[in-house]
This record gives sequence, C-alpha cells and structure tokens, in this order.
Amino acid sequence: MQQKVRFQHCDPAGIVFYPRYFEMISATVEEWFEERIGVPFATLHGERGGAVPTASLKIDFHAPSRLGDALEFRLRPLRIGRSSVALSIEARCGGERRLSMESTLVFTNGRAGKPNTWPGDIRARISREIGGAVSDDA
Amino acid sequence: MQQKVRFQHCDPAGIVFYPRYFEMISATVEEWFEERIGVPFATLHGERGGAVPTASLKIDFHAPSRLGDALEFRLRPLRIGRSSVALSIEARCGGERRLSMESTLVFTNGRAGKPNTWPGDIRARISREIGGAVSDDA
Amino acid sequence: MQQKVRFQHCDPAGIVFYPRYFEMISATVEEWFEERIGVPFATLHGERGGAVPTASLKIDFHAPSRLGDALEFRLRPLRIGRSSVALSIEARCGGERRLSMESTLVFTNGRAGKPNTWPGDIRARISREIGGAVSDDA
Amino acid sequence: MQQKVRFQHCDPAGIVFYPRYFEMISATVEEWFEERIGVPFATLHGERGGAVPTASLKIDFHAPSRLGDALEFRLRPLRIGRSSVALSIEARCGGERRLSMESTLVFTNGRAGKPNTWPGDIRARISREIGGAVSDDA
Repeated sequence: MQQKVRFQHCDPAGIVFYPRYFEMISATVEEWFEERIGVPFATLHGERGGAVPTASLKIDFHAPSRLGDALEFRLRPLRIGRSSVALSIEARCGGERRLSMESTLVFTNGRAGKPNTWPGDIRARISREIGGAVSDDA
Repeated sequence: MQQKVRFQHCDPAGIVFYPRYFEMISATVEEWFEERIGVPFATLHGERGGAVPTASLKIDFHAPSRLGDALEFRLRPLRIGRSSVALSIEARCGGERRLSMESTLVFTNGRAGKPNTWPGDIRARISREIGGAVSDDA
Repeated sequence: MQQKVRFQHCDPAGIVFYPRYFEMISATVEEWFEERIGVPFATLHGERGGAVPTASLKIDFHAPSRLGDALEFRLRPLRIGRSSVALSIEARCGGERRLSMESTLVFTNGRAGKPNTWPGDIRARISREIGGAVSDDA
Repeated sequence: MQQKVRFQHCDPAGIVFYPRYFEMISATVEEWFEERIGVPFATLHGERGGAVPTASLKIDFHAPSRLGDALEFRLRPLRIGRSSVALSIEARCGGERRLSMESTLVFTNGRAGKPNTWPGDIRARISREIGGAVSDDA
C-alpha cells in the first residue's frame, strides 16, 4: 500500500511525527483486511460485531521521512493463534527502509473487549495468507 | 501526568484508538523534558536547534481505556547513552495497568537528523533523574 | 479552559496546524458539557444514548500559535433551539486573540443521527448558562 | 480527490469526527496545489520558503459519513487577492452532499507569518484555474 507523506503527518522538525505513522499503519491493516481477507472494517465492526485491537507492538524507525515522500507499506502475516494474529509491517521509500514493526492483533467481540476465537472464515483466509507469504519467501 | 480519555481519542468500538495513546505519550515525554530536565520543547526545538525523535519502542496494551477514564502516565528514565536515552512509560487507571512501553529516543541536531552527542547540561539532568529513579526503587 | 500548544499540534512551519485547533475546541466543548451542563460525554454517549455533532461552524484565525503557547479557550452559549445550540468560542494567548468561532451543535439520538428535541434537564441547564452569559454581558 | 472513511476518522458514534474532515480537506488542498498549480507542498514549504495557512473558513456538515464511505472531494477556487485565495470545497458520497466549505488561505513567507504578495507564477496558475472554473460554470 502506497501512502504519501502529507503536511498533516509532519512535525516542526519537518519529519513525520511518529504517532502519525501509526495512522498510516492502521490504514494498511484496514486495507489488508478488506483486500486480502475479504472483510472490510465496516463489515467487521458492523454486522460481524467484532474488532481487532492491537495488543502489543515493537517498532524500529530506521530513517526519518519527509513531506512529499511516497512510502510503500508492506504487510506480511506471520502466525495465527486461537484469537490473535502476528503481523510484520515495513515501510520503504525508494530503496530505503524507514520502519519495521511486528504487532499482535486480537479478535474481540462484544462490549467486554475480551479476546475471542477467530470466526472460521476469517481464520481460514488469514491462514491461507500466511501460507502464501511463506511460499512467497520459499 | 494525568490525561483524560476524550471523545477525540476513541474509536467506533468506544475505546482508545491506539495511535491516540502515542499522542498522550508524546505529551508525557514533552512534559518530562520541561518539568524534570528543565528544557521545554519550545527551547529544545527553537534556540537549541535540537530534536528528540523516537528511534524504537515496544509497547503492551494490557486493557482497553474508555471515554472519561482518567489515565495516570508515569515516565521513568532507564539508561542514557552517548546520544540516546531509554525510557519506561506506564499508564494506569485506578489500580489497573493499561499500557507499558519502553522506548529509545535519540538527540539530533541539524537538518540531517543524525544522532548527536547530548549537550552536557541535558545529559547531566537526565543522569540525575536516572539516579533518582534508581534510588526511588532501592 | 487552558490548553498548551504541544509538539503534536504543530506543523513544519512551526505553528499550530488548524485541524489540531478543532481537537482543542472539541475538548473545550466536552469540558463545558461536563462542568457547566453536568453531563459528561461518557454519560451522554453511554447511558443517555445521545450525541452532539457539529452541524456548521464559522471560524477566523487571527494570529498563529506556536509550540509552548498557553491558550485560554472561552466558550459562551449564544442561543438554544428545539434540538440545537449555538456556541461562541474564543482562544487567546496573553492579551492576543488567536481564533474566534461560532458553531451550531445538534442533539441526536439513535443510529439514524437525526436531530432530536433536547432532553428537558439538558435544555434547562443550557438555558440557564445562556441566561448567565447574557447577564454577564449586561 | 477520492478519500475513504477509515477507522481512524470515526468517533464512538461510528461517524466521522469533524476534526478529521479537516485532515481530508487539508490533503485535498495539498493535492490541488501539486496537481493543478504545479507546486508540491514539499517545494512550497522547502525551497520556496512559503506557507498557505488558513485564515478563515465556514463549513456546513449536511449529513454524517460512516466507516467505509468513499468520499469525493471537489475543490473550486473562487477569487484571488493580493495575498489570499478563496476556495470552495465540497464532499459527496454517491449523490449525497456531506459537507460544503468556503475558506480563505493566505500566502505567507518567512518566520513572521505575515501575509505576502503571491509569487507571480503561483498567482498566474491560480488565476487560470479560476478562469477555468468560471468557464466550467458558464
């Protein structure tokens, strides 16, 4: 997913303010659920009554990004658990790596926000993507 | 530092959208530099010509926060390097831990955004805070 | 309501990026509902099942605000309708006026998001505040 | 300019939180400067040393937007002054108008943030766009 560094992402030092990267990352995850898993967030949060909050993450910012940079975000699913999924996300600009992150999302459903077993169809599609990701690398 | 969960922090699931936590965390770091290190960000970024971008972080979200929650953010400096500082930040609501993070900030100065040796006065104050933090724990 | 201009509010030109002002204004309205009208947003959006979206606004930015500025936001209710309220909000720093806005909020309730008649207790309190505001001016 | 309503734009009521609209509007203005006026913001704020802060605006929110909505933003320049430009911006989803705004931007340059005469090339291109807009209507 391509995202452009806009004025609204930049701080007084002229570089992306790191909380804004998480908005771009959130958009990347949202797009992945829609395009690859086949569940738009409007459906997931609407009729399916679910949510996929982030439980933990680890991120390295390798180099600053500046106004006008075209960032390429790549998401690769790593592992699926009973109610969680581990994702790897990288952003690059040209050949340069700007950030790399590993995060764990959990599937929740209902007001309590407790982790819940993945619905079968979503689990199947994520698993297929992990399989695909592995074969892509193999 | 006390921060209230406002409407603008919450997502359609009614809980804090995690990128907004990083805005609260950024405000906590800013306040720490002003109150404990004696260098307001306006001075740091203005006449001192510096910046303290985040180089890496690791965060666990233990429980969701909701509209109206009063969060208590605590920052503890862990280690200082030639041009970096490691911080530990926790947010609690009442007795409950909501998030815990460890991050590394680097001091940069000039347009290139390269890490630079800490100015002597800032290094001395951060070191004193680390000493203090250690004694607080001892 | 006092709000400090933080790093997260500023753009590459070193001044407040105007969409961030609306986050400060939103916090001002939220605080007014809690402190003066006696209905915290958590209650309004929770057990009362309502919302107060902004229907229209008109704003003038008189002078830029910079990192570290302490802004003083003042809210004055102007008029109440069947399902709306008109507010006047100003922000100043020291003696200088930074922005002045007039906005209209509507009370809605239910998923449809249609304007609804104000609940009696909320209407009574807003009317009292308008009365107070008028007498303050008289 | 097409923009999708994402999770990060929505509030606990499930609709776009109005300050987030201004981020979409800011992106629309930025894209217009790049595509139609031929001055990317990176150039405007960088080598040209300028900025185009918003001096005032008036906006009506006609209907709420929800997660997943594809919004179409249209910008039409209305009038150019010595150092200002008046813009009209509308967002629609399908046939429905969601918001309409009129704003005035000023050209500034240098730290003082004072309005400055438009550079000749930018004035010429904006004027041509206004001419074009007028003929479109005629």
